[in-house]
Amino acid sequence: MTKPVPADTLSRLKAVLGEGGWSQDPERLEPKLLEWRGRWRGETPLLVLPRTTGEVAAVVGICAADGVAITPQGGNTGLVAGQIPQGEILLSTEKLRAVRDVDGLDDVMVLEAGVTLSEAHARAASVGRRFTVGVASEGSCTIGGLVSTNAGGTAVLRYGMMREQVLGLEAVLPNGEIWNGLKRLRKDNTGYDLKQLLIGAEGTLGVVTAASLKLHPLLASRAVAIVGLGSPEDAIQLLARAKDETGGAVEAFELMGRLGFELTLRNVPGLRDPLPSIHPWYVLIEIASGEPGAAEAALERLLASALERGLISDAAVAQTQTQMKAFWHIREGHSAGQKPEGAAWKHDVSVPVSKIPVFIARANAAIAAAYPGTRIVAFGHVGDGNVHYDVIKPAGGDDDAHDAQRDAGASIVHDITADLNGSISAEHGLGAMKTIEAVGYKDPVELTALRAIRSALDPQRIMNPRVLF
Amino acid sequence: MTKPVPADTLSRLKAVLGEGGWSQDPERLEPKLLEWRGRWRGETPLLVLPRTTGEVAAVVGICAADGVAITPQGGNTGLVAGQIPQGEILLSTEKLRAVRDVDGLDDVMVLEAGVTLSEAHARAASVGRRFTVGVASEGSCTIGGLVSTNAGGTAVLRYGMMREQVLGLEAVLPNGEIWNGLKRLRKDNTGYDLKQLLIGAEGTLGVVTAASLKLHPLLASRAVAIVGLGSPEDAIQLLARAKDETGGAVEAFELMGRLGFELTLRNVPGLRDPLPSIHPWYVLIEIASGEPGAAEAALERLLASALERGLISDAAVAQTQTQMKAFWHIREGHSAGQKPEGAAWKHDVSVPVSKIPVFIARANAAIAAAYPGTRIVAFGHVGDGNVHYDVIKPAGGDDDAHDAQRDAGASIVHDITADLNGSISAEHGLGAMKTIEAVGYKDPVELTALRAIRSALDPQRIMNPRVLF
Repeated sequence: MTKPVPADTLSRLKAVLGEGGWSQDPERLEPKLLEWRGRWRGETPLLVLPRTTGEVAAVVGICAADGVAITPQGGNTGLVAGQIPQGEILLSTEKLRAVRDVDGLDDVMVLEAGVTLSEAHARAASVGRRFTVGVASEGSCTIGGLVSTNAGGTAVLRYGMMREQVLGLEAVLPNGEIWNGLKRLRKDNTGYDLKQLLIGAEGTLGVVTAASLKLHPLLASRAVAIVGLGSPEDAIQLLARAKDETGGAVEAFELMGRLGFELTLRNVPGLRDPLPSIHPWYVLIEIASGEPGAAEAALERLLASALERGLISDAAVAQTQTQMKAFWHIREGHSAGQKPEGAAWKHDVSVPVSKIPVFIARANAAIAAAYPGTRIVAFGHVGDGNVHYDVIKPAGGDDDAHDAQRDAGASIVHDITADLNGSISAEHGLGAMKTIEAVGYKDPVELTALRAIRSALDPQRIMNPRVLF
Repeated sequence: MTKPVPADTLSRLKAVLGEGGWSQDPERLEPKLLEWRGRWRGETPLLVLPRTTGEVAAVVGICAADGVAITPQGGNTGLVAGQIPQGEILLSTEKLRAVRDVDGLDDVMVLEAGVTLSEAHARAASVGRRFTVGVASEGSCTIGGLVSTNAGGTAVLRYGMMREQVLGLEAVLPNGEIWNGLKRLRKDNTGYDLKQLLIGAEGTLGVVTAASLKLHPLLASRAVAIVGLGSPEDAIQLLARAKDETGGAVEAFELMGRLGFELTLRNVPGLRDPLPSIHPWYVLIEIASGEPGAAEAALERLLASALERGLISDAAVAQTQTQMKAFWHIREGHSAGQKPEGAAWKHDVSVPVSKIPVFIARANAAIAAAYPGTRIVAFGHVGDGNVHYDVIKPAGGDDDAHDAQRDAGASIVHDITADLNGSISAEHGLGAMKTIEAVGYKDPVELTALRAIRSALDPQRIMNPRVLF
């Protein structure tokens, strides 16, 4: 727990923000202190609600002068406890909601940190463009959080992560100064790219207050299929062929093991199996093209040749928009689908794409040996090497007993990941939850450098102090 | 000039590298001390030629212990004097030439710093893939230099700069330690992304020794046209339509003013005007698609609708590969084409894409007022907002007199650039040449942060000390 915040600091923060700019009302605080799945509960002496970048700077300035710690929070959708204060001042970006610009000629929009991802999508659409980052929590998660956690999602394969969508940032640095880095440039080689440090810094290097973001053209054609296949090896081969044959027009390539597929169909209402028979593995593949009709043609061609070569066993191509959505719901239902099965350990790992089959094989064997009867649901953004590897308790087993073994189980999965030169957090970040574990896997030379950078920019370690190294 | 290197340091460097690992032979040194255009000449007490990352670490370790400065050099193709030592130890990466891996399944290749861009292209092609960074000096420039300067080039519009091609780095940090960050992951959210700092750091944060790089699929169809049009405004509108109509399949979009076009046709042998009449502005546009035949079709459609709307006056579509190359030669010949006209000030600026017309108009007016008779050649990667804005001496004028006004002229151009929220170095970097000027345009808050980062990683400032802030 962070040391208590002096009463004088609280008074000055309240004074600078004025009415409506802060709260200590337990009801107002509750949704910001409770992690959305209920796994963590935080506390704070004061919720600050700055309305402008200037007010953020005033808050951080007071805290810096007094050596008081701050936890920034966006939509509170994080999965690794990076946004939950434990005694720090809680700085919410919810009132930084301005859409400063949306420009279809520059293909840029400038949004403040508290704008939700849903609104970002809508704003992009309003000028006939597309913002490509998409995650399940889009109604709640915000631009500041997406930047600070370098969010991933389903379109990374083609467009890259949040990092690749950011052209410029405005942020309040840990000393309370405003950095105006809201450029709209596609090229700018004038020294270290400071924004790259703040992207994915989980709020430890300052508070992101606004971002200028890339817009992409809409694509004229789009086609989705679910295919059944024999192994992750075949899926990797299919991915390589898909990228090759379509010239990189693969928009999504999501692998799903039979168990997760089955649980989702069973437990999520309104879904049905698009394929007549059962397969050990499935892939949802989406192709999109700027050419009208080209996506459908390319997908048909790809599937025909893959069937002929025996790379896939069966395939169903969505014939309507509704069917396309239904296919996606099977993939998106994978978390909800396993929930009724009870406690599960969740791992968000990445390995080089070609190593996915060996990762799954080794992890399955190790988990089966150590925890007999547990059930593996492996799925994810295989085109990015990103596997969501979930281990559900044995059927009829005890939730608490399973939860108690979570860390030991994670060690097994993460050791194999590290051995394959992978990452123990592909897209969720480290937060307060995974930081200590990550230290064990990180190159010590890198760790020293990262700590030196943090100390250089935040010598008092007041920004999200419990998070990252 | 950097302080003299102690004789003892030199002896230890020679001893650790052994025969063939260093040189003081003036003939061997000459091509590394002379900037390729002859604008700068450097000096060094010792050229070191490490063959392995371990040897690089040994060199940097000795220099760090003795507080001796190092200038790293790749292919010596830089344009801003970042690679020319002025008394420092000169560390060439020319012997770090191993191709560690080329993997068409992971779409990754791992190359050491001294591998040339041409070889990188060839290696990618050998597995049916493409490395998308392309610059004119590809036969000489090297991976380490491309990373350290965040190289740009003609395919940035679609694929991004060097930064977006790098999945991992291996580097020797300023303390002489080896950082093994040679990941091949598309997603890795485990703390600040250290490689992003080294990319574009111009050798000031360490020596890049190897990189893992993204490979992209080959595209099945490709079409090139040169169009004549009335104004940069029309070019920007054409670009927006092109991106929109092709769903982002625009591979290159290069604007050229009439004067540069004319000088190139006149002065570069073997070129001819593809259009029957004269236009104030030209665009070379290239469309590429994963779909066979789609690029040609999309380009024809785009040009037909642009002609109909009066956005362009005329267009010639390349009918053969040879013609495609000939069209590109006009664009690539723009530097050679103006050379016979005598001394020129060159500016490599970027502004938001939509601001290009106003940038050109304001810069032309200001230069004409201040330096009557000078001739403007404006061209560049307009899809990226990047204008190469060259000011040639008045016809028949004196070279030296023109050269003497270079800095004053640059101030005019760069002030306008800054006023439009642009960058005074879009792709060339700052080196020793532009650093002092850049300080004047940089946000002071940012500058303080960048300096703190540098001090944190290189407290003695031994890495390329004359370069960057």
